[in-house]
Amino acid sequence: MSITGGRLPDSSSSGADHVAVRRHNLAVVLRHLRDSGPRSRARVAAETGLNKATVSSLVGELAERGLVREGEAERGSVGRPGQTVVLDGHGICGIGAEVNVDYVAAMAVDLRGEVVAERRLPLGTSRVGPGPSLDHAARLVAEVTDAVAGRGGQPVGLTLAVPGLVETATGTLSTAPNLGWQDVAVVRELSTRLGRPPYPVTVDNEANLAAIAEVTAGEWAGTTDLILLTGAAGVGGGVVSGGRLLRGGHGFSGEVGHMPVDPAGRRCGCGRTGCWETVVGFAALLADVADPDDPVRDPNLDLDGRLAEINRRARLGDGRTLAALRHVGQWLGIGASILVNVLNPAVLVLGGYLAAVGEWLRGPLEAELSARVIAPDAGGCRVELSTLGFTAAVRGGAQVALESVFNDPTLVRRVDPVVTPLPTGGPS
Amino acid sequence: MSITGGRLPDSSSSGADHVAVRRHNLAVVLRHLRDSGPRSRARVAAETGLNKATVSSLVGELAERGLVREGEAERGSVGRPGQTVVLDGHGICGIGAEVNVDYVAAMAVDLRGEVVAERRLPLGTSRVGPGPSLDHAARLVAEVTDAVAGRGGQPVGLTLAVPGLVETATGTLSTAPNLGWQDVAVVRELSTRLGRPPYPVTVDNEANLAAIAEVTAGEWAGTTDLILLTGAAGVGGGVVSGGRLLRGGHGFSGEVGHMPVDPAGRRCGCGRTGCWETVVGFAALLADVADPDDPVRDPNLDLDGRLAEINRRARLGDGRTLAALRHVGQWLGIGASILVNVLNPAVLVLGGYLAAVGEWLRGPLEAELSARVIAPDAGGCRVELSTLGFTAAVRGGAQVALESVFNDPTLVRRVDPVVTPLPTGGPS
Repeated sequence: MSITGGRLPDSSSSGADHVAVRRHNLAVVLRHLRDSGPRSRARVAAETGLNKATVSSLVGELAERGLVREGEAERGSVGRPGQTVVLDGHGICGIGAEVNVDYVAAMAVDLRGEVVAERRLPLGTSRVGPGPSLDHAARLVAEVTDAVAGRGGQPVGLTLAVPGLVETATGTLSTAPNLGWQDVAVVRELSTRLGRPPYPVTVDNEANLAAIAEVTAGEWAGTTDLILLTGAAGVGGGVVSGGRLLRGGHGFSGEVGHMPVDPAGRRCGCGRTGCWETVVGFAALLADVADPDDPVRDPNLDLDGRLAEINRRARLGDGRTLAALRHVGQWLGIGASILVNVLNPAVLVLGGYLAAVGEWLRGPLEAELSARVIAPDAGGCRVELSTLGFTAAVRGGAQVALESVFNDPTLVRRVDPVVTPLPTGGPS
Repeated sequence: MSITGGRLPDSSSSGADHVAVRRHNLAVVLRHLRDSGPRSRARVAAETGLNKATVSSLVGELAERGLVREGEAERGSVGRPGQTVVLDGHGICGIGAEVNVDYVAAMAVDLRGEVVAERRLPLGTSRVGPGPSLDHAARLVAEVTDAVAGRGGQPVGLTLAVPGLVETATGTLSTAPNLGWQDVAVVRELSTRLGRPPYPVTVDNEANLAAIAEVTAGEWAGTTDLILLTGAAGVGGGVVSGGRLLRGGHGFSGEVGHMPVDPAGRRCGCGRTGCWETVVGFAALLADVADPDDPVRDPNLDLDGRLAEINRRARLGDGRTLAALRHVGQWLGIGASILVNVLNPAVLVLGGYLAAVGEWLRGPLEAELSARVIAPDAGGCRVELSTLGFTAAVRGGAQVALESVFNDPTLVRRVDPVVTPLPTGGPS
């Protein structure tokens, strides 16, 4: 699955010439090895519909580009065991960076999906403002790219995650209500701080990137219809439908936090009334769960610790805590039933703080879905808790940067092969 | 654009062999002529990236299959004017059929998008039940296929539109609250009544099919991000995002009518409270617009006439009529703002009864969108009234049947050419 859309899949109005077909087939083989695991050339040929000689030639070129290498002999195959081919690309890294309400972060992920380096810094970004926040983000990016260089690798791209509306074409964060930022040229600002790096730098909404992380690296990898809800100060949504991230006509999709769910409800930070995040954001839980002077409501304390304390109280059966969590779970279900009726996801993933206290939300959430979704059995939608924690957005950002290579392996230069030269034909 | 997904675009995990590439390229040329209009082979080559000799060969094969023909000499081109190629396929027809609350209908559309025949019969389908309703639908289908045969053509497929949840794999209408039908094997029942026709018969939700009609035949043809709302007894939604119809994980997407928008609201026919269709369905308008004994509320009278009367009263400035329309428009905007926040469509199209009285709904609807959509300028979303009236679903059904040919022109057999033999090379 090519979550951001591959070359040929996007070009149904373009004819396929020889060069385009070769590029397409290189991408098909590379993605097949990623999605299906190590296997022989013969098996790749059988499974992709390409002929064996073509697959051998394609594998040879992918190896010259450092993207695949020889693996072990295949077991359990009929006849002579074939030498397997394995996704490599340990030197090819995507970089994800993030500026969010309480922290900045960066991560490098290699082509095999393995995390090479990861940094996170607690930071009140709305208080310090765009300049210092991006200074810190750039420093973390430099640290993870140093780690990549230390293993002889190179970044192929960087994606910055932000909690707001972005204009991807101009690299601008248009508005981020929970940061209090407007019209910040984040791509230019970050690129400048990185000394104008040779790889492409882009920006995207954090929930979109977290959704990409869930369908590529999460436990539900490969799911073609998934909604991710990121619970933080606000609530963001990333929607994958039919195997693709939805972006909308102008890139503004997924603004679930401001769905009007309660016309008679609370005033939202955005100025409207009854937005979904007024009843399911972290602030809404905190307002109900404890008095103002309770440490779990102190924004200067570590977030993970505060969430652990809420979980501890719930486990001890504290009535106020359980009632507050049940209330959030019910409203979560009311809003989620809208999304499930409209989008019919196979999986609804709770991320961010919603995952951290998700064991208490799931029951009331599922009850509302059951009652409010018109399709039988909530349309077959399962509720799951993200296991990626607060790293989902940087992971998704790194994945997007890598995706350019999976869509067009020729973006990576041929290098002197460091593996045994590959045969260009034969039965394996 | 291939709204239902073309062959190569869907097969990013498949290698492209020679046969697949030829089929892909035939489809590219055929769709290019559909989307861009008549043009010379040279221009098709320049615009698709295929070489001229290949285009000439592809055009030759498409002509042998009756899908294109020679057109006029191209004007305004540099150098020697080229002979144009024109989409033909006047004998290749898709059939749409529909069973809805107040009527059954059928339509045949040829490959050029021209309506060959159209039938409609007012019918209280929930009263007469599935059997007699499908008898009438089958009769209308027979009439339009007779018309196709009368011009020497043949149907390539039939799609039945129904106002409910469908299981496309089994051809079953699972549940249609406004018909009161459940678990009806509509594809099998209709096929049997048609004497098991040689073409494929499928079923789909009427709003999905209407959305396909809007992006292929409506005034907004080619829009890649569009939401269609069909206003009837209930309200259905069809969502096109990124050029593709959204179906969801189990085919149950687009159930917008039962979004809970008013927790303190009216009881819905589905048993829930505050569903969107309780405030924007035709019944909701009627309840406000006139007393129970007013002829505009008489379901036995012609629907178009009743709508015309409501429009007449509004134009005369009748206070009660205008207030009722404004009320529906506001609730339409509240629910639509949810969809626009989540999906960011470029166009929101009002269909069915909502289009008929749309001139009164548009103002309050746009005001709510403006106030409630978080992206600036309602995310760039325009509100438009469908010009396809109550024929959108049958037109979309016919289009889906035709789409199989646009995705794979080799589905149509080669015939003896009835046009001048085409050159297979040369400068044009």
